[in-house]
Amino acid sequence: MSGKFVSEKNLNFLLYEIFDVESLTRTDRYGQHTKKMFNMVVKAATQLAKDRLYPILDEMDKHPPELVAGRVKVHGDVRELMKEYGEGGWIGSGFPEEHDGEGLPIIIANVCRFIFAAANYSASVFPELTAGAAELILTFGSRELVDTYLPPMLAGQWQGTMALTEPQAGSSLSDIATTAFPTDQGYYRIKGQKTFISAGDHDGVDNVVHLMLAKIEGAPQGARGISLFVVPKLRPDTKDTLVSNDVTVAGVYHKLGYRGAPITELSMGENNDCRGFLVGEANRGLSCMFQMMNEARLGVGLGATAIATAAYYAALDYAMERPQGRPLAQKDPSTPQIPIIEHTDVKRMLLFQRAVVEGSLSLCLQCCLYADRAKVTSGEEKERNTLLLDLLTPIAKTYPSEMGILSTSQALQCFGGYGYCEDFPVEQYFRDARIHPIHEGTTGMQGMDLLGRKMVMNNGRAAMLFMEEVTRSIAAGKKFPDIAPYADLLAQALEQLRKVTGHLFALAGEKGPEVFLADATLFLEMTGIVAIAWQWLIQAVAAHEALEKGCKQKDERFYQGKIFTFRYFFRYELPKTLGLCQRLMDNDPVTMEMTTDSFKD
Amino acid sequence: MSGKFVSEKNLNFLLYEIFDVESLTRTDRYGQHTKKMFNMVVKAATQLAKDRLYPILDEMDKHPPELVAGRVKVHGDVRELMKEYGEGGWIGSGFPEEHDGEGLPIIIANVCRFIFAAANYSASVFPELTAGAAELILTFGSRELVDTYLPPMLAGQWQGTMALTEPQAGSSLSDIATTAFPTDQGYYRIKGQKTFISAGDHDGVDNVVHLMLAKIEGAPQGARGISLFVVPKLRPDTKDTLVSNDVTVAGVYHKLGYRGAPITELSMGENNDCRGFLVGEANRGLSCMFQMMNEARLGVGLGATAIATAAYYAALDYAMERPQGRPLAQKDPSTPQIPIIEHTDVKRMLLFQRAVVEGSLSLCLQCCLYADRAKVTSGEEKERNTLLLDLLTPIAKTYPSEMGILSTSQALQCFGGYGYCEDFPVEQYFRDARIHPIHEGTTGMQGMDLLGRKMVMNNGRAAMLFMEEVTRSIAAGKKFPDIAPYADLLAQALEQLRKVTGHLFALAGEKGPEVFLADATLFLEMTGIVAIAWQWLIQAVAAHEALEKGCKQKDERFYQGKIFTFRYFFRYELPKTLGLCQRLMDNDPVTMEMTTDSFKD
Repeated sequence: MSGKFVSEKNLNFLLYEIFDVESLTRTDRYGQHTKKMFNMVVKAATQLAKDRLYPILDEMDKHPPELVAGRVKVHGDVRELMKEYGEGGWIGSGFPEEHDGEGLPIIIANVCRFIFAAANYSASVFPELTAGAAELILTFGSRELVDTYLPPMLAGQWQGTMALTEPQAGSSLSDIATTAFPTDQGYYRIKGQKTFISAGDHDGVDNVVHLMLAKIEGAPQGARGISLFVVPKLRPDTKDTLVSNDVTVAGVYHKLGYRGAPITELSMGENNDCRGFLVGEANRGLSCMFQMMNEARLGVGLGATAIATAAYYAALDYAMERPQGRPLAQKDPSTPQIPIIEHTDVKRMLLFQRAVVEGSLSLCLQCCLYADRAKVTSGEEKERNTLLLDLLTPIAKTYPSEMGILSTSQALQCFGGYGYCEDFPVEQYFRDARIHPIHEGTTGMQGMDLLGRKMVMNNGRAAMLFMEEVTRSIAAGKKFPDIAPYADLLAQALEQLRKVTGHLFALAGEKGPEVFLADATLFLEMTGIVAIAWQWLIQAVAAHEALEKGCKQKDERFYQGKIFTFRYFFRYELPKTLGLCQRLMDNDPVTMEMTTDSFKD
Repeated sequence: MSGKFVSEKNLNFLLYEIFDVESLTRTDRYGQHTKKMFNMVVKAATQLAKDRLYPILDEMDKHPPELVAGRVKVHGDVRELMKEYGEGGWIGSGFPEEHDGEGLPIIIANVCRFIFAAANYSASVFPELTAGAAELILTFGSRELVDTYLPPMLAGQWQGTMALTEPQAGSSLSDIATTAFPTDQGYYRIKGQKTFISAGDHDGVDNVVHLMLAKIEGAPQGARGISLFVVPKLRPDTKDTLVSNDVTVAGVYHKLGYRGAPITELSMGENNDCRGFLVGEANRGLSCMFQMMNEARLGVGLGATAIATAAYYAALDYAMERPQGRPLAQKDPSTPQIPIIEHTDVKRMLLFQRAVVEGSLSLCLQCCLYADRAKVTSGEEKERNTLLLDLLTPIAKTYPSEMGILSTSQALQCFGGYGYCEDFPVEQYFRDARIHPIHEGTTGMQGMDLLGRKMVMNNGRAAMLFMEEVTRSIAAGKKFPDIAPYADLLAQALEQLRKVTGHLFALAGEKGPEVFLADATLFLEMTGIVAIAWQWLIQAVAAHEALEKGCKQKDERFYQGKIFTFRYFFRYELPKTLGLCQRLMDNDPVTMEMTTDSFKD
């Protein structure tokens, strides 16, 4: 096995030929960087991933975190890794330089995260969560909070978390019950429980900083009464001393996969001595948290893509080496067996995986680029990029997550019986991948977010902008005779999506939100396929242009591979919109009408 | 948690209202039975499953088989279980009474297997494999083999296996290398390796009997040189002594799931003292083995259905009890949360699972009924039932296996974060289910079997019979105004399938087998959806008739649930044929043309 888990060539193709990331170096914000520096950063990330993360992929899975005497014990390398993440600037990669960050474009920082996640997803979440929590403090926190918490967090000495979920309030955040009691000493006294807190405690760091949602005593009920707090595990008391902040680890979950990362249950204020520090305005916590949440959702999409990518390369490697069977027309059993990649059905399985993972990666990086562009533009252009990012976030979270299950499953299938055994990493990828449709908002929640919020916000302006973007890519594709028929297929699918959207909006007016949103998950699925087809069309045009210009033989086969995979997507995946469209256009409200009673027998 | 894993009500509905199993008691072969006896058998199976199998589901997963000093150690209850399987007649349930079997119809025996598999899939394979191996001996073995091996196997004292796969010959059986050297003493000397042998050794029995494929020295190359042997682990030497037969366990696999069952690597003849006994004619082993293989494939379909069924009931139970969120129109956060089953998207997920599992079970039992009818009829009617069984076997193996992954995944999703944790059995179901698209012939092989063999055999007669059966059900459905529109949808899908089949046959003629079979897996998927829609139409007609006749309130909600699920299948699943049809009708040979080189970058 080659142990390949990402393609540097594909990353370069996306960064420079598709998304022209170099253009960012011509902006004020990113003007201090060059393409060469970006390349060095990506190379360094790849090296760290190869040298430190991939080698412990299996070990971290086999030796999951344990709760020992109130402390969560993780893999012994995590402490050293956190130090390297900190010293190497990986936690602060997207932070401004005045805070000791690297000031890298979001797209470059996320390519590095992707590489880490492909090497070892569990090991990659520690710095990612820390960066997200630190960014929240930087954006909304007081100067004092920033000065106290940012340096050790970006240095990898303190872990950051996002602490939202409670046992009685999973997807329903308005029901959280953790309470913040005001004091006159500049802090709140926190009391409550949190569950499913990723990296909520571990012995790879000296402290853990929870960005926690809680309700200030007496605040309004529901989402409008939620505030955001910094709740450290240990609080800085005098200058150099950290004292217990009365945060107890009540448990650590044993999970299907993603086993290297500790997912914890926390209890705050059992001794009435848990202090929380308000971040941003009181009762505005949810909207602050959504900054981190949206980035986390994109991170989930990238993480899901990363795991499926690693699984794809493992399957590809195996398929090239494993001899089995003969061409169908070859009836002579004395001829040698052929590598399974030469069987058409195996090529189909590999093309499926490649179409999913390279399409997903492209969409996630497209979102990162919108985020970067929103930072370097202003006025209408800024709004445009922001709206596109907002609209595409639930799709970039969900398509890779849902399809990642199928893609890792097909990777496993390529190995036959060996795929089901622990001898190869692919069974772990299959388990690891399954978390993604759940965390940071389930697929069902993403569907409601897309259809119920993003499609209608600003009078549907984001949706209109998306259709414009896709239409522009279709026009670009039509210029090439080889690509034009596929561009037409996407134009048809886009037209169907427009029709479905109109139909659903009409339903909303006539029949209310329950009917409107009943099939939001299917709407998300359909939009996802269209979005990935769009990304493949963009890639095909770039590959076609490169081939027309002429290139080295090695590059030629890469570009041709891109065009094959593009064709695969349009021939095998895009047609799935037909069935979805049929369902979304029909009015049989079967899931609405089904009663709880009729499930009983 | 209720711990429910099957619905007795649904089993009764299928057995008596759909498949009229009582009619079998009016045949010579099954005339000694009554419906009451069938009921008693099913009840006893359920009791055994509840009392003995389900309670150790988790334990067997957590303590997988280990190889200790050359012997495979399994869960301590397996020995007692094998005894109960034997004494209770569960291994011999389908065997004729003159061999101490119960002489039960195949459909009843398989309902019992289904119940065992739903309770604990790993624990259910020991008797199933033993019965399959014993049946092969009974059908093709000499009187001496039958007398020696059947009694201890049916008594659960000796384990049976099917030993086909070798490290260099997975799906390509013609490449097996295990060799049988003739002797003049009535046996062959066996030398070779086998891999992935389920229950290939364990300490829950006194002996293991391998039904093994090997090539007699000097036999023709390829599939025509394969013979079938009985190769016991211990061979009866003098009357009461078992001596080693030189079969060594080289390893036991550590697997993603299905962990309670030992999957082994075997080495035969390391000391030149492994004896094999020919079963059936020399060089005809593959066709003998296919008897067991076909039954095993149906068993896989049932096993996959069973696991997904248990996962569905776990999810249903959780969804009824777990409060979370409020109706979309309810904006007041002070109102109590509702059970998640009341959210439309959760109902959709549950309906999906129910549609898959009850549709799959129906198709599997339909196949069993064809098998029974083939036994009790003769001439054209026998041929008809045999052909339908042959045609539907790859579908009944694959639809439940592939959809079982998605169905258990949706069950897991219903639990949110808890589904990903070991606190509930559903993460185990997700792992257990993943074996089914692999063992007993991968999905890819099933696709080739369906399109390349079953659709064309006897000049396409089986395919024609299948279309006739579906057409008859459509006609029955059209008699009810409420059902007629759905019957029309199936008629359209069937017409599409006919068109696709014609198109592919034409391709075969023009372009040869590679092009013809390139998308055999998709053809299988499309046929599978049509077959399950057909089974749902049959169920809907029966439910509708029962409701028209009038019934108890409790039964009413069951029948209404059936009709809701039927509607769900036709509105959400049947439309998936549109995309498949589009792909199967288009001629872009992208998977054929993709080169191995273009996968490299």
